Amino acid sequence: MTIGIEEANREALDRIFRAEPVWTGVRPAGEVIEGLGEGILLHAGPPIEWERMCGPLRGAVAGAIVLEGWAGTLDEAAKLAESGDIAFHPNHHFGAVGPMTGITSRSQPVMIVENKAFGNRSFCTLNEGLGKVMRFGGNDEAVIDRLRWLGDTLGPALAAALESAGGVALKGIVARGLSMGDEMHQRNVACTSLLLRELAPALARTSPDAEKLAGILEFIGGNDQFFLNLGMAIGKAVMDPARDIEGSTVVTAMSRNGTDFGVRVSGTGDAWFTAPVEMPAGLYFPGFSEADANPDMGDSTILETMGLGGFAMAAAPAVAGFVGAGSAADALNCTRTMYEITSGRSPEWTLPALDFQGVPTGIDIMKVIETGIAPVINTGIAHKEAGIGQVGAGVVRAPMACFEAALEAFAEKMGVDSE
Amino acid sequence: MTIGIEEANREALDRIFRAEPVWTGVRPAGEVIEGLGEGILLHAGPPIEWERMCGPLRGAVAGAIVLEGWAGTLDEAAKLAESGDIAFHPNHHFGAVGPMTGITSRSQPVMIVENKAFGNRSFCTLNEGLGKVMRFGGNDEAVIDRLRWLGDTLGPALAAALESAGGVALKGIVARGLSMGDEMHQRNVACTSLLLRELAPALARTSPDAEKLAGILEFIGGNDQFFLNLGMAIGKAVMDPARDIEGSTVVTAMSRNGTDFGVRVSGTGDAWFTAPVEMPAGLYFPGFSEADANPDMGDSTILETMGLGGFAMAAAPAVAGFVGAGSAADALNCTRTMYEITSGRSPEWTLPALDFQGVPTGIDIMKVIETGIAPVINTGIAHKEAGIGQVGAGVVRAPMACFEAALEAFAEKMGVDSE
Repeated sequence: MTIGIEEANREALDRIFRAEPVWTGVRPAGEVIEGLGEGILLHAGPPIEWERMCGPLRGAVAGAIVLEGWAGTLDEAAKLAESGDIAFHPNHHFGAVGPMTGITSRSQPVMIVENKAFGNRSFCTLNEGLGKVMRFGGNDEAVIDRLRWLGDTLGPALAAALESAGGVALKGIVARGLSMGDEMHQRNVACTSLLLRELAPALARTSPDAEKLAGILEFIGGNDQFFLNLGMAIGKAVMDPARDIEGSTVVTAMSRNGTDFGVRVSGTGDAWFTAPVEMPAGLYFPGFSEADANPDMGDSTILETMGLGGFAMAAAPAVAGFVGAGSAADALNCTRTMYEITSGRSPEWTLPALDFQGVPTGIDIMKVIETGIAPVINTGIAHKEAGIGQVGAGVVRAPMACFEAALEAFAEKMGVDSE
Repeated sequence: MTIGIEEANREALDRIFRAEPVWTGVRPAGEVIEGLGEGILLHAGPPIEWERMCGPLRGAVAGAIVLEGWAGTLDEAAKLAESGDIAFHPNHHFGAVGPMTGITSRSQPVMIVENKAFGNRSFCTLNEGLGKVMRFGGNDEAVIDRLRWLGDTLGPALAAALESAGGVALKGIVARGLSMGDEMHQRNVACTSLLLRELAPALARTSPDAEKLAGILEFIGGNDQFFLNLGMAIGKAVMDPARDIEGSTVVTAMSRNGTDFGVRVSGTGDAWFTAPVEMPAGLYFPGFSEADANPDMGDSTILETMGLGGFAMAAAPAVAGFVGAGSAADALNCTRTMYEITSGRSPEWTLPALDFQGVPTGIDIMKVIETGIAPVINTGIAHKEAGIGQVGAGVVRAPMACFEAALEAFAEKMGVDSE
């Protein structure tokens, strides 16, 4: 049986490494995500009902309902959400991912990433920038207005530029980003800059209004985390083909909704193994402290699932400082430790500071349990109340209980299969 | 006397660290460099006459003469240069710097960097890109055509954008670049990307022709070394105020013309202390070897003079591989060694991989002689014949004899002064 598992895990890794993610377009979510219609909202993490949602997720839900015009005010929106007339589903069930609260609603533009090696597609909203934003539970007029600008102006402009450019291949941008201090979760300054560099000529060719073009270049250029959402879409597009490989103990998704942390494993299909989310340990923005913090949240752990974020901490000593994870040596050791719980090392995404060893890829639930080492995650920290936003950044661990439950279910399934 | 030297060196460092370099404009060299008229060419390194010039420098001289229309063919140009009717001067004598051959002629557009803290200005040509280029001795029609495009199209567009943007502050871009794998000599991918990000909105506002704008964005975006020349202009603007401090043993310029290596020291004014240049030890492009290589060349060592390039190798483990300087640990040690021959550490330009220690700044000729450690330089390698171009990249040391001669002259001057 162990040999079967090794083979299955090699197959999972092979699919991950053969992926060819390309940013092909931007469209309103309702046009490209099948089944995302009126009265439906997608959220980060495993399934959750309104009653159990945390403050920022509720705030984002209310904001999205106002954005979609299903209610006129945030209060009415909250009542509508509570009434049971809004259906909530995980992004992951619809081929999508979203950072933090991760709300995806039908009118929001989503980036489309196609995995050319396998033909599957993934979706993620456009990054809103920093400050008060919906992904951190912000929902006031400024937040809604910016979301409308993303839909009216930025989304269509990016769509036209991508069509003109024939898409943007993303694997090489991530590879360069890793040699430029990004780990693509808490630091995307290099990838954002490289992306803008690549897309700017096509934007110039397809945006006839100079002032509008300048505004678009300023918005992307003014937001170091613009690439984050694209990195997440890469993660979803890369990891999805590794789902459902019989006998594989490789993790295909880690995700959190602010209440529960969920893990999916290749050999157990699309079942979620959940446990209560943990509280990040990190650094807080001036005026905030751990007392303000919401527990861990977002689909962004798809980055760690494919070997980036905390797993690629060695690429980003500057992030180690930002998230309170220590010195440059600690950053190297963080990645080294993740080699102990992964199935392989990426042949193309390498770390100069570790003499070009590949990032640790393919979390193996058996190794997690054997070593007692939980996957490390770099994360933003949201205020626990709705409407406030980001208060810090830190490091958090995936809860061990998820992996224990997953391994139990896996063993049971293998036992049943081998009868 | 030593206390006097210490004080003088502190003053030199203080001036270096207080510098505020800003890219303020682009103009034809003849309009802004006083005295650069017809029949005059500026070159890299200390003074040199035609007879002693190396192959690539002669090639670039001939190309520049054709570009300026002083001769119709490269052969006629070489004859004109040989005749004595062309006057050759170092860039450094005109407030300028140039990479490799470093030819500056009156019609070429130069970037203007103003040191706002001191009011001095420096000049450097625009980077031509990779492949066959004049800075590596290239001089065929394609090289000349590209130089004309720099003058006709890119230069004026950048000038308009800079005017609209009110200039671009450069100190912060270098600081970010150091946290993104650049050492600004052999690797400028981060700084080039950050610069484009910052300038793109202004370019969009001031370039009405969409196709021309797209071409400009493609040219800059397609050349990872675009920032190199700007980095050099920063070096000249930052180091010039540290010249002529009585009693200071800090190096204010290192430069090579492909035949001689020259060093200037603050306390000895503008005298050059020269020695034969050395041959870089490096890696060669496919099809080339050390037998093809020209010895060390260019004003680009102004970067090492202010603490970047080889001195900042710890920022750029990927460069260590590119120039054949070894592993990531070797890159860290390269910077650590340069602390032994410098007067201080930059408070603003820091190295994440060394837990945010500042780059080693202010080469002290006394420490060089005492330790026997020569400054390390990351450099491109040109083919030794005219017209071919770059054949590799490597590491080279500044010749010890320059520092010995400088220290002797310094001691003599101090002795005379103290009589």
